Amino acid sequence: MAIPYPHFIASEKSAMETGILVPSPSSSTVPPVILTQDELKKIAAYKAVEYVESGMVLGLGTGSTAKHAVDRIGELLRQGKLENIIGIPTSKKTHEQAVSLGIPLSDLDSHPVIDLAIDGADEVDPHMNLVKGRGGSLLREKMVEGACKKFVVIVDETKLVKYVGGSGLAMPVEIIPFCWKFTATRLQNLFEYAGCTAKLRTFGENNEPFVTDNGNYIVDLYFKKDMGDLRAASDAILQLAGVVEHGMFLDMATTVIVAGELGVKVTNKQRDV
Amino acid sequence: MAIPYPHFIASEKSAMETGILVPSPSSSTVPPVILTQDELKKIAAYKAVEYVESGMVLGLGTGSTAKHAVDRIGELLRQGKLENIIGIPTSKKTHEQAVSLGIPLSDLDSHPVIDLAIDGADEVDPHMNLVKGRGGSLLREKMVEGACKKFVVIVDETKLVKYVGGSGLAMPVEIIPFCWKFTATRLQNLFEYAGCTAKLRTFGENNEPFVTDNGNYIVDLYFKKDMGDLRAASDAILQLAGVVEHGMFLDMATTVIVAGELGVKVTNKQRDV
Repeated sequence: MAIPYPHFIASEKSAMETGILVPSPSSSTVPPVILTQDELKKIAAYKAVEYVESGMVLGLGTGSTAKHAVDRIGELLRQGKLENIIGIPTSKKTHEQAVSLGIPLSDLDSHPVIDLAIDGADEVDPHMNLVKGRGGSLLREKMVEGACKKFVVIVDETKLVKYVGGSGLAMPVEIIPFCWKFTATRLQNLFEYAGCTAKLRTFGENNEPFVTDNGNYIVDLYFKKDMGDLRAASDAILQLAGVVEHGMFLDMATTVIVAGELGVKVTNKQRDV
Repeated sequence: MAIPYPHFIASEKSAMETGILVPSPSSSTVPPVILTQDELKKIAAYKAVEYVESGMVLGLGTGSTAKHAVDRIGELLRQGKLENIIGIPTSKKTHEQAVSLGIPLSDLDSHPVIDLAIDGADEVDPHMNLVKGRGGSLLREKMVEGACKKFVVIVDETKLVKYVGGSGLAMPVEIIPFCWKFTATRLQNLFEYAGCTAKLRTFGENNEPFVTDNGNYIVDLYFKKDMGDLRAASDAILQLAGVVEHGMFLDMATTVIVAGELGVKVTNKQRDV
C-alpha cells in the first residue's frame, strides 16, 4: 500500500515530540522515513508515560507495546524525573521486567486503588471497548485495570477495528482445564449466530495446551460477524461454569492513544459508572 | 423440641418404603423412632435413585447426602437391577467412591449431555434455588448439573431456607488465588447492603487456604439479610475479575426431595429456558 507523503511528516513529528527520533536541522527536506510498527508502539507508549506523575501507584501492562512504557518509566526513574512510583505488574513477565529496571513493585492486596494503568490492546473498537489477552495475561490485566482511576490504552493503528472481533483474530477466554472441550463447545455454540469458531490455544511442536499464570487454559474465539450487544455477550460467557474470564474490556479504557502514520491521536472518555 | 407423634409415623413409613427400615409386624404399636439427620439424608437419596433407569448417563453429586445415592446406585448395579449406567462424577472424591463401587465412569467431554444428576444442597429456597459448594466442589457440580436434562436435589429438611443465604451459613465463591484479599474485599463490598462478610476458607491448625480440585481458593460469604434479586447478584459476582464461580444454583433443580420428620416431600419444576 502506498502511503501518501503527509503521513510521514506527521509520524516523524510525533516521533520527535516524544523523543524517539532526533530532529535533523533540515527535517522538512530529508527523505520521508517509514516508521516500523514497533516504532509506532513506542511513540504511543512514550506519550502515555507523559500521564505518569511522581508518587503514583501504576498498573504496568503486558505485551510488546506496554513493554516500551515500562522501559520508559524505568528510564525516567533512573534519571530522577519520576520518584516514589509503585508498580503493580499484570503478569509474571512484566514483574520480571520491572524488577530488572529497578521499579518498586507491590500488588493489589496492598494497593487496591491504582492511580493509572498503561497497557496495550489487541483490538480497540469505536466505543473504546477492547480485546486483550492474546498474550495470555487477560485475567490479571483485568483485575489491575479494573481497579485503576485512569486506564490509558496504547496501540498502533493496526489495532483499530469496526467491532470487537472484527480483526478476525482471537478473542481469548480463560477457562479451567477440567473438561475444556465441553466448555469450548459451549462457547462456540453461544455465538453460532456470529460464525464463531473456538480453538484451544496450544504451543510447541506437540501442541501442548498453553497454561496461564493462573494455571488455566485459553480458548480463542474467532468471529465471522459482529456479536452484537457486548454486555449481553460478556454476561453469557461469564455465566458458563468453567469460564474464568474473557478478553473483552468493556467501558474500562479512559484514554486511548493511537500511533499511526498520520501521527498520534489521543481520545478521552468518561468511564461509565 | 417435642416432635408430635404423627411425624414419626410418616418418616417411618417413608423409611420403610425406600427400604431403609424393615417394617415390624406391629409397626403401628411400636414406640416412635427418631430418625437421625443421616437417616433422613439416606431416605431422600434412596427416593432420588428411584428416578434412575438402566442406560442412563448420570451426574454423581458430592457430599454426605449424595454419597448415599451413589452407594445405592452401586448396590442396584451389583444386584443387576440397573444396567449400562455411565456416571459423571462431580469431584475427585466422588470419582474414587464410584470407582470403588464399580460404577463405570466418563466425563463431560465424552458425554456432554447427562440424563439425570442427583446431588445434595446446602440450602434450598422456596423457588428451588440452591446454595451448594460448602464441600468445595461447586464448580464441577455446576458444570455437570448445568448439562443435565433432570437435576434431582436431595436434602433433609434442615436445608430449607426462606431466602438464599438465610441459613446464616456460607455461600461459597471460588476465586483465583492471585490477590485473593482484593477479590474478597470486592465481594464483601458488593453485598454491603445485605450485611455481607467475606472469609477465606482455611483448614488445619495453620489456617492454610483450602484449595479446590481446580487449584483455586474459596471465599465464603455470610449474609445478614436477603440479597434480593439473585440473577443480578449472580451476574455482579461473575463480573468481578478474579471470580471463577459461585455457589448459587439458580433455576437448575428440576426436582427437590426433602426428607423430614413429616415424611418425604417431592417437588417438581419445569426448568426456565
